[in-house]
Amino acid sequence: MSHPDDSFHVFDTTLRDGAQREGINLTVADKLTIARHLDEFGVGFIEGGWPGANPRDTEFFARAAAELDLQTAQLVAFGATRRAGGKAAEDAQLAALVNSGAPVVTLVAKSHDRHVELALRTTLDENLEMVRDSVEYLRSQGRRVFIDCEHFFDGYKANREYALSVVRTAHQAGADVVVLCDTNGGMLPAGVRDIVADVLRQTGARLGIHAQDDTGCAVANTLAAVDAGATHVQCTANGYGERVGNANLFPVVGALELKYGKQVLPEGRLAEMTRISHAIAEVVNLAPSTHQPYVGFSAFAHKAGLHASAIKVDPDLYQHIAPELVGNTMRMLVSDMAGRASIELKGKELGYDLSADRDLVGRVVAKVKEQENLGFTYEAADASFELLLRDEVRGTRERFFTLESWRTISEQQPDGLAGNEATVKLWAKGERRIATGEGNGPVDALDRALRAALEHIYPQLAKMELVDYKVRILEGQHGTGSKTRVLIESTDSTATWSTVGVADNVIAASWLALEDAYTYGLLRAGLDPSS
Amino acid sequence: MSHPDDSFHVFDTTLRDGAQREGINLTVADKLTIARHLDEFGVGFIEGGWPGANPRDTEFFARAAAELDLQTAQLVAFGATRRAGGKAAEDAQLAALVNSGAPVVTLVAKSHDRHVELALRTTLDENLEMVRDSVEYLRSQGRRVFIDCEHFFDGYKANREYALSVVRTAHQAGADVVVLCDTNGGMLPAGVRDIVADVLRQTGARLGIHAQDDTGCAVANTLAAVDAGATHVQCTANGYGERVGNANLFPVVGALELKYGKQVLPEGRLAEMTRISHAIAEVVNLAPSTHQPYVGFSAFAHKAGLHASAIKVDPDLYQHIAPELVGNTMRMLVSDMAGRASIELKGKELGYDLSADRDLVGRVVAKVKEQENLGFTYEAADASFELLLRDEVRGTRERFFTLESWRTISEQQPDGLAGNEATVKLWAKGERRIATGEGNGPVDALDRALRAALEHIYPQLAKMELVDYKVRILEGQHGTGSKTRVLIESTDSTATWSTVGVADNVIAASWLALEDAYTYGLLRAGLDPSS
Repeated sequence: MSHPDDSFHVFDTTLRDGAQREGINLTVADKLTIARHLDEFGVGFIEGGWPGANPRDTEFFARAAAELDLQTAQLVAFGATRRAGGKAAEDAQLAALVNSGAPVVTLVAKSHDRHVELALRTTLDENLEMVRDSVEYLRSQGRRVFIDCEHFFDGYKANREYALSVVRTAHQAGADVVVLCDTNGGMLPAGVRDIVADVLRQTGARLGIHAQDDTGCAVANTLAAVDAGATHVQCTANGYGERVGNANLFPVVGALELKYGKQVLPEGRLAEMTRISHAIAEVVNLAPSTHQPYVGFSAFAHKAGLHASAIKVDPDLYQHIAPELVGNTMRMLVSDMAGRASIELKGKELGYDLSADRDLVGRVVAKVKEQENLGFTYEAADASFELLLRDEVRGTRERFFTLESWRTISEQQPDGLAGNEATVKLWAKGERRIATGEGNGPVDALDRALRAALEHIYPQLAKMELVDYKVRILEGQHGTGSKTRVLIESTDSTATWSTVGVADNVIAASWLALEDAYTYGLLRAGLDPSS
Repeated sequence: MSHPDDSFHVFDTTLRDGAQREGINLTVADKLTIARHLDEFGVGFIEGGWPGANPRDTEFFARAAAELDLQTAQLVAFGATRRAGGKAAEDAQLAALVNSGAPVVTLVAKSHDRHVELALRTTLDENLEMVRDSVEYLRSQGRRVFIDCEHFFDGYKANREYALSVVRTAHQAGADVVVLCDTNGGMLPAGVRDIVADVLRQTGARLGIHAQDDTGCAVANTLAAVDAGATHVQCTANGYGERVGNANLFPVVGALELKYGKQVLPEGRLAEMTRISHAIAEVVNLAPSTHQPYVGFSAFAHKAGLHASAIKVDPDLYQHIAPELVGNTMRMLVSDMAGRASIELKGKELGYDLSADRDLVGRVVAKVKEQENLGFTYEAADASFELLLRDEVRGTRERFFTLESWRTISEQQPDGLAGNEATVKLWAKGERRIATGEGNGPVDALDRALRAALEHIYPQLAKMELVDYKVRILEGQHGTGSKTRVLIESTDSTATWSTVGVADNVIAASWLALEDAYTYGLLRAGLDPSS
């Protein structure tokens, strides 16, 4: 067991609370994949869902028992205290928690007097009895129990004595951790710190924190609770969660490991953070947030000319941690705000030493500005930038093929069948080629036509594939009549590269990005366009 | 002058530091528009850029003097202390600040000993002299001066005495506010609070805070500085800024006004927050962050069935503030996680009372699940959901037109000209219509063809317009061969509505979204499809 000891808990609830995020809809297979990523990252606990509440979560726990081989994390089932007026031992919902097979159970309990009366519709005393009875029952079934005190902070402000009595009851009944939840997310760090400190003094219970991000302070609130003595933090990957979201696992872990010097992951796992963050975003089918702390694509990207000059002297002057610690990398951005220093550094990153040729750097800066005025962006299209740089270095635009024309036709026929067809006419190695492709959409058809036209001349194309395709409307005021920017990500299975195209027309823009993607891929395969 | 007094400053630097964000590239016209939005929101200071550093910023100040009629805010020019070894009165860069005409100048000064030596390449004493001389010169020119102490917190940790001496020098030379900058963004709130308190004790200077979000704590760090006595907060709209970004203006103002009870905006402006946030996102051409605190589209959206039931009892049980305070609204999300309670509430929001018909609610829930399995999402397409609901309520699918077929052709000819043409064949009011449209892209052409086919039958269409068009690839693993979801936003100038289409093919998906958009628009115009 490589996990740090039990004295501090990193508890992930992406699969339960994170799944409440608008736009997320996880299948059981998605949940299993995410659990594997979280285990690989090294969290201590993975809350998998609410067995019995819906068929999907019940199935997840059944399949987790059979298929998941967790190395570091323990699986946690989530549920509620027993029904008012019933008995824990006879409660169907608690039975489902036991039957889930999870070694740890988190029970949500009301700790705000008004919620007990209005939402639960029972008495304050019966609510305490529900907590006691439910915890004792689960303990008797050999389960470790954590209690989530829902709306704790609001409840503490409304009726401190009652909120404290819920904590005491849970603690005395055998709950290992009492988690104080800022369910509505309205707290700020100073208030969290004071209340957690008071609860710790008054009850002696082991405390945890569950923060929502409605004030934009969920990470800080989590750390404030740790400052006050909490030893269990509940987070979600990428901060997914209802409304604004939950405390984001990655900056919380980043702060604990790198700012507090507290080891909360097994050795070596912190450097997987960026990869795991992006992998989970991929599974939930949301674009990774480019501006996420520590793991965002932009988190260590430098744009300002002022900074770029200083970074040439010493990178540590301008970054709060070495990005490699969290598996991220420093990037210099190419943009028309950038000066010569940025372009030189970017060239160096790509393997071109530009420092000796001041004219060349000037020409590249001018060309970038010109293209960016047309709507191109090279910040997210390194391969297109490298082609631009290569053309300027060589003083000529060398390509593997020359377009004559293309055409796409999409139609939906009276019988409801839809079809897409594209034809390209081009020249390659002195030969005129015409090819037609069919596809799931006009751009897919165009890609297939281009591939068909070139594949017997350039068999290396067989290894290349488009993996992502993004469309951005540049001027949002004119609807479908706007200028369109297309970003294409391609791979040859050892690397991926991004290219950009801009035109009035989504298909013309796609063509430009496709042309760069193929050109870059063939250069990567070692071919020489001038031969 | 409706602005609160000078005792607390809300200082916005969207136009200067915010513009460093990856992907943002502002024209002078953009900057003027953003300045108007910020002034309308009611910030006290708008930092417009660095006159003299680049032609765009110089032009901005020239045009601002002529065209901007600021009601609440004062315009601020940003620059650096004079060159080492020179004289402030002869410094070209300082002259440009004076010539900008801005009544307030923010000067960036080094306060970290290592930065003075390595980046500025001068002595610690000369740096102090540069601060003193520059501040005194600008004061002699009648300017109010704020000093940004760059890398202050890192500098304080490296050499506290030197960092304090920079603050003292600026203060004694006549700077009104000394702003402590966490330039690399590595601080956490507890550290900010302690250092700000110490600096205040040691120097007596009026202090400000400038926080970057690299730890995910910029809002909390800003508030921690206020807790310790800072009375000037530097922020950017939507948190735009280099790397991860800056302290986000909106949650900072939200916390100060609603959690601290401190009036920092003119009366009545807080309720404009959501609108202003989205308007600025529109100008910088970035999609508004749906999960932004206070102002995000999801910030008061409820999905979980558990919560939805409780919200029926009392909405305040589940939200930290009334969303109307910041110009936002509560939304119930339609999703396959939602139970009957959510659908009922959503129906009520749209004006359909479903509470009496349990079968109907069940049919709607089933239909939503079926459609979401196909890739539709109704969370962001209220109009498509309302059509679905309407069809279920009436038990029949009524439309204003029936498609026979459509076809789009896009081509780029050998002479480089690109063109797009679409033909639709459909039936409306018993009449068969065929029309062809040309457009900037295939979807634009399709929209025009549909409009041409229908406009003499439904003249109400003249008022309708598509305003936004979003394409999302649903399965990111297969590049251009993936399933495509299209969201279309339409307006008739009094309201906007969103519709969704999903298909293998971007054009077929666009057709579905267009069909819903037209149908919903004609219903809104009061037409009855059955007549």
